[in-house]
Amino acid sequence: MKDILDKEDFQVVKEGITYPQGIKAAGVKCGIRFNKKDLALIYSEKLADAWGMFTTNKFKAAPLVVTEKNLSFSGGKLQAILINSGIANACTGEGGLKDAWETVNYVSEGLKINKKYVAVTSTGKIGEFLPMKNIENSLKEAISKLSTSGSTEAAEAILTTDTKKKEIAINFKLKGEEIRIGGMAKGSGMIHPNMATMLGFITSDISIKGELLQEALQEVVKKTFNMISVDGDTSTNDMVLVMANGLAGNKMVDKKDADYYKFLEALQYVAEYLAKCIARDGEGATKMIEVVVQGAISFGEAKKVAKAVINSPLVKTAVFGKDPNWGRILAAVGYSGAEVIPDKIDLYLKEKVVEDGQPLTFSRQKLHEYLGSSDEVKIIIDLKMGEVNATAWGCDLTYDYVKINTKYS
Amino acid sequence: MKDILDKEDFQVVKEGITYPQGIKAAGVKCGIRFNKKDLALIYSEKLADAWGMFTTNKFKAAPLVVTEKNLSFSGGKLQAILINSGIANACTGEGGLKDAWETVNYVSEGLKINKKYVAVTSTGKIGEFLPMKNIENSLKEAISKLSTSGSTEAAEAILTTDTKKKEIAINFKLKGEEIRIGGMAKGSGMIHPNMATMLGFITSDISIKGELLQEALQEVVKKTFNMISVDGDTSTNDMVLVMANGLAGNKMVDKKDADYYKFLEALQYVAEYLAKCIARDGEGATKMIEVVVQGAISFGEAKKVAKAVINSPLVKTAVFGKDPNWGRILAAVGYSGAEVIPDKIDLYLKEKVVEDGQPLTFSRQKLHEYLGSSDEVKIIIDLKMGEVNATAWGCDLTYDYVKINTKYS
Repeated sequence: MKDILDKEDFQVVKEGITYPQGIKAAGVKCGIRFNKKDLALIYSEKLADAWGMFTTNKFKAAPLVVTEKNLSFSGGKLQAILINSGIANACTGEGGLKDAWETVNYVSEGLKINKKYVAVTSTGKIGEFLPMKNIENSLKEAISKLSTSGSTEAAEAILTTDTKKKEIAINFKLKGEEIRIGGMAKGSGMIHPNMATMLGFITSDISIKGELLQEALQEVVKKTFNMISVDGDTSTNDMVLVMANGLAGNKMVDKKDADYYKFLEALQYVAEYLAKCIARDGEGATKMIEVVVQGAISFGEAKKVAKAVINSPLVKTAVFGKDPNWGRILAAVGYSGAEVIPDKIDLYLKEKVVEDGQPLTFSRQKLHEYLGSSDEVKIIIDLKMGEVNATAWGCDLTYDYVKINTKYS
Repeated sequence: MKDILDKEDFQVVKEGITYPQGIKAAGVKCGIRFNKKDLALIYSEKLADAWGMFTTNKFKAAPLVVTEKNLSFSGGKLQAILINSGIANACTGEGGLKDAWETVNYVSEGLKINKKYVAVTSTGKIGEFLPMKNIENSLKEAISKLSTSGSTEAAEAILTTDTKKKEIAINFKLKGEEIRIGGMAKGSGMIHPNMATMLGFITSDISIKGELLQEALQEVVKKTFNMISVDGDTSTNDMVLVMANGLAGNKMVDKKDADYYKFLEALQYVAEYLAKCIARDGEGATKMIEVVVQGAISFGEAKKVAKAVINSPLVKTAVFGKDPNWGRILAAVGYSGAEVIPDKIDLYLKEKVVEDGQPLTFSRQKLHEYLGSSDEVKIIIDLKMGEVNATAWGCDLTYDYVKINTKYS
């Protein structure tokens, strides 16, 4: 992350999803979540190139089906995104699909834009139907409140059991033109994206060819949102959307040149920041865990190892207990399914604790104190087989995770 | 299970691993686990046909490597099994291997049997070395205490964080001859066998061809021990061993005839009983969960679904919270990786709560009470695609699981 910040022409600013030119947002209460904002709207003044990535769960929620269709109808263009929290509109059959299409109609009529340029999504309880009348009415309020300073209210309205809003904005220069990117996300439980309910929304005013925007999103999601895990449960509603409306006025990025890679780097920064926010704010979490796997022969192999460690309940509880229990980490490496050579592996937990698969002498007390003092724990696993790295983010498993998830629904 | 008990010539008796003729056992304290029995010895008076199944974890513990070698050297014969709890002798490199071979020597010398007929195994903390002097001395005590009534002490000596000993014995008749089977196991944490630290030991006095014994064990482990999960962590030390010494005097089972299938059924009963004991006694568990997947096109597909549901932290916490949260169950089915048709699936939680992928009207309060009143929760998922079933067993995820696993090691 530091790499980017050190560069003179990258800048992180205290803004959110509405930071790029021509992007407005609003967040209002539509009555699903008692006395909390639960309906967010994002709007681009200019039709934007857009792309989305969706859950791999076979029970894909109705609004995701609808949004995928619209992206296909419009050939990768969007102008508005409507998000409600509290109800997921998943496992709701034909009725749920009809409702999702109906919300598209509301947005299309309210904003006077073509239906195919509308994305809709939902997060919350599975198996319940949307309160359509509430949404119709509150959407009118949201439209009337759309503004370039609405990012925080929108970021709040998409949360469920999250404890913190997750937003970021950055700018960088392409041949003198300032390009802006804004992002917001929600996470918390059922987080094991492939996509997880993880929702991510990224806007930019960059001018970029649609195909390249798609490719950039896929590349970045693979290394960021798809590398976090709170509990190994892949949700029915995971979705990441990006919109780029071209209002920055840069010369269109239309090939994989230096400009493209600069944008990719910026997009990666935004996505990684949001992904880490989600991991840090996992249900009940007290610590974020970062697992770096080095020296793998491929990204796939590195990912298997990183995911196995980040998902292990025994590793997660050990971190909560401030226990430098390297044995549990090695056991997870061993069952990850990756081809590893046990007696080559080095393991670092602040310091090197395992070399060539066997424990070194280290101060258990010192590491216990380190684990106690930091709210970020970094585990580095060096497979010493190849040159490829992967990083995964997650969180510890605590009493509060159990508490949050045992509440009688 | 009832199927067997209803048959006149199957009988479950209050015995354990020493129930078959010619099997003796002992359990003693060797000083690893403070003031608890931690060294068990099983001995067959007659050289037994034997087979083992071992963890798929790449960090396979030293004693498992040694035991696999011995089973290969001896062509599938064993006469003694030594088990210690408290230290796993895993991730201990060359030194750990040397120690494991040395324990084989102790047993071989003490019992005056060939080294290749000795199996050794360990369960407990990873990365620590066995206290060899203690084991050498306590083994002498164990040998002197070997008896046909030593099953309970042996079953106690192999436990770690288990709260209950796990043993069973049954008999049945083959053409008038009584065949006996005894078994014991340990489980608790890092339970996600493929093989998990799950240890299982089964003895019998049946006379059966070695190859058929192997095949029977593989068939049974696939459907029992490999279908349980406490936390998704596959241990470095999982192992199941079977010994059959032929002392029952039956005509040797040497082909897949009715006698073979009767033995297979009996072996399945013993293994399933022990597997369920392990699930029920999972770390911190208050309830056993049984997931039955019906109507799959193959066992592999049914297993994927059953394992995804039994492993889902959100399903496990919902059961702890007595919450009939069918949405979390469907979400797990959806991300299981199995090819399912969402709008075909039926789901039963005592009663049918989902039909064709959509919720039915049911009394949430009644199901909440059912979940509260029972210490076994049965989830039936009907995929309605084929004819194949699979059953998996696990347990709820509770505050105590977190507590047990956050204790600073």
